[in-house]
Amino acid sequence: MSHADRILMGPGPGNPYPEVIEAFGRPVLGHLDPDFIALLDEVNDRLRQVFLTENPLTFPVSATGSAGMEATFVNVLGPGDVVVVGVNGVFGERMCDVASRCGAEVVRVEAEWGTAIDPQALLDAHPSPKVIAVVHAETSTGVRNDIQPIGAGKGDALLLVDCVTSLGGIPLEIDEWGVDLAYSGTQKCLGVPPGLSPVTVSNRAIEGFVEKSQSWYLDFSMIASYVTGGGARAYHHTAPISMIYALHAGLGVVLDEGLENVHARHRACGERLQDGLVKRGFELFAQEGNRLPELTSVIVPLDRLPSGADEAGVRRRLLTEYGIEIGGGLGPVAGQVWRIGCMGHTARERNVTMLLGALDEILG
Amino acid sequence: MSHADRILMGPGPGNPYPEVIEAFGRPVLGHLDPDFIALLDEVNDRLRQVFLTENPLTFPVSATGSAGMEATFVNVLGPGDVVVVGVNGVFGERMCDVASRCGAEVVRVEAEWGTAIDPQALLDAHPSPKVIAVVHAETSTGVRNDIQPIGAGKGDALLLVDCVTSLGGIPLEIDEWGVDLAYSGTQKCLGVPPGLSPVTVSNRAIEGFVEKSQSWYLDFSMIASYVTGGGARAYHHTAPISMIYALHAGLGVVLDEGLENVHARHRACGERLQDGLVKRGFELFAQEGNRLPELTSVIVPLDRLPSGADEAGVRRRLLTEYGIEIGGGLGPVAGQVWRIGCMGHTARERNVTMLLGALDEILG
Repeated sequence: MSHADRILMGPGPGNPYPEVIEAFGRPVLGHLDPDFIALLDEVNDRLRQVFLTENPLTFPVSATGSAGMEATFVNVLGPGDVVVVGVNGVFGERMCDVASRCGAEVVRVEAEWGTAIDPQALLDAHPSPKVIAVVHAETSTGVRNDIQPIGAGKGDALLLVDCVTSLGGIPLEIDEWGVDLAYSGTQKCLGVPPGLSPVTVSNRAIEGFVEKSQSWYLDFSMIASYVTGGGARAYHHTAPISMIYALHAGLGVVLDEGLENVHARHRACGERLQDGLVKRGFELFAQEGNRLPELTSVIVPLDRLPSGADEAGVRRRLLTEYGIEIGGGLGPVAGQVWRIGCMGHTARERNVTMLLGALDEILG
Repeated sequence: MSHADRILMGPGPGNPYPEVIEAFGRPVLGHLDPDFIALLDEVNDRLRQVFLTENPLTFPVSATGSAGMEATFVNVLGPGDVVVVGVNGVFGERMCDVASRCGAEVVRVEAEWGTAIDPQALLDAHPSPKVIAVVHAETSTGVRNDIQPIGAGKGDALLLVDCVTSLGGIPLEIDEWGVDLAYSGTQKCLGVPPGLSPVTVSNRAIEGFVEKSQSWYLDFSMIASYVTGGGARAYHHTAPISMIYALHAGLGVVLDEGLENVHARHRACGERLQDGLVKRGFELFAQEGNRLPELTSVIVPLDRLPSGADEAGVRRRLLTEYGIEIGGGLGPVAGQVWRIGCMGHTARERNVTMLLGALDEILG
C-alpha cells in the first residue's frame, strides 16, 4: 500500500520537521536503559523551555493530546469536586465530558462559537471551585482564549489549560500566568507526528491530587517515580521510545530556531493567510483580536463553490489534485467553516502561497 | 545526544524489524485522510489475522500495552461488578489495581510466582462473575497460563486476557478459545517499538459494555465509530499516525513469514536459550510445561557472580561491554531472577549464541 505525501494544512497533524522523521531511525533502547533515561530527561528539560516553566513534573504522557486532557482531569478531580469549564468549542465540551466521568460537578461558562470566553465570567461562576479549566487555542473555532487574567484571579483554584494547539505556536507562559496543569499535543506547532501529550504540573497541583486517580495508566503519582525519580527509576509502563525520540528532535528544532522566532514564523503565516482570504472576499469566523495565527477558521463561501460541488468536494479536490489537506467544521459549524492550519513545519509562507493559489484555481 | 544500538533481550521492547523502522519514514497523513483510513483498515485486518479472530472491533489503542489493559477493563466493569482475576505475577496484580479503580469487586485467585494459574480455580472462584481476567504470558515470571479451559468453562462470564507478551510469540486463538476481550503490545513479539496496544473485542463483550465508561479516551463505543465506521469516520481523537505505519509494517513482516513460522522461530530461540542455560547449571524459574519460549526467567546464579559483583553489575556489564540488554526481576523476585527475552526481530538464534557466550565470558 502506498500513498502520496501531503501538505498538511488541516487542524493537525501538521507536517513534521525532517529532523523528526530522521529521529525515528535511532536504535530502539529499553525504557530503563540509562541512555534512554538521559534522553527522556533532556526531553523534559526541553519541554520546560517551551512551556516556560520550572515545574519538575513536566513530561510527555504516553498517548495523544486527548489523553493529556484526561490525565490532567483524573489526577485532580474526584466525585463531588467542582470544576468551572469554559465552553466555546469542541474541546471545552470535551472537558465537560471528561470531568463528568470523574464524578465532578461541572459548572459551564459558555461563549458563542467563534468568540472568546470572558475571563471574569469564569472567575465569577463559582465561589470556590477546585479547578478552573479552559482551552487556550480552540482548535474547532480558531479562537484564542485569554489565560493570564484567569491565572491572576484564580484564588485557591487550580488553573487547568488545554495548550494542544497553542504550545510552540503562540506565546504561552505557564509559570508567569499561574497555570497549574497544562497539556499539549505533539502534532500541532511542535512539528512532530501525533502520539504524545506533553504535560506540566505545578507543585500546587500535586498537593491537590486526588488520593487515587481513577486511571492507572494516567496516574501522575505513579508516573512521577519513573519520569522524575532521580537516579533510580521505577517501572510504571513501557515508554513509547521512538515517539520520544521524535519529540526530542522536534523540540530541538524549535529551540534551535528560538521559541520567539518560531512564534514569529507561525504569526507571519497566519497573517499572510488571513489577509489573503479577506482580500479574496472570504469572511473569517473567529472574532477579531482573538484569532489564532496557527489555525484559521473561515466561513465557507457557499456562493462561490464550483457548480455542483459542496464544501467537502472542494476539500476533496484540494486533497486529490494538489495534495493539500485542510479541515472541515466540527459540530454545529460542520459544512459552514473550513479550518486551515499552519503549524510546525507546515508554517512556511510558501505553503500559504500554494493554498491561496489552489483556492483561486478551484473557486475561480 | 547519541547512543549505541542494543540487542534488546529484556522483557520488551525487543528489537524492531528493519522494515518497521523504514515505515516511520512514510509521509504523515491526516487521521481522516482516505488513504490513512485505508491503511488503518488494513492494520485491523492484519490484527484479526494474528489474533485469529473475526471480531469487527479489532484495532490498536492509541497508547502502550498497559492502556490496553485499562481500556478493556473500563469498558466492561463498573461499580459493584464482579471480576475474578488470576494473580501469579506483576501483571495479574496490575489487573486487580485497574479493576478496583473501576469500582469493581475483585476476586483474586492466586498462584505462586513461577507457577501457572489453575483454570478450574478461576472458574470456581465465584458463581456469576461478569468478567474472568487472566494473563496469558506473565512477563514478570515467564509463565504461560492456560486460556482454553477457561474459555470452555466460562459460562456467561466475559473472558478478558492479557496477550501483551503472547501475541505473535506463541499460539493464541481468540475465537477458538472463547476470549471476549484481549489486549497486547507492539514492542514484544510483533517486532514494533512500544506505543500502541492492539485490542480485540467480541460482540458478546460489546453487549456487556457499561453504559458510560469512566474513561473518555479509552471509550470503545466512541472509538468504534472511528475505527469501524464504514465509509464515514467520526473523529474521536487524533490517531498516532506514524506508530500505526510501524505496526502495519510489523504485522506485514509477521504475516509474510507466516504466523506459524514466527511462532516456530520464537520457540526455537527459547528452547536453545533454556537448554543452554540448563547445560551451564542455571536453574529456570518458571515451572516446566508452562515456560514461555519468548521470555525466559532464570534464577540468578549468586554463587557464580564475579567477585565483588552483584546481579545488577552483571547486567550492567552485558549492557556496556556487549550492548546486550537483559531484564532484572520485578517485585518479590527482584535481585533473584533474570528475564531474558527473544521477541520479534530479537528472536534469532545468533542472539542466543551471543548472549550465552557473553555470560560465559563474564561468569567464567
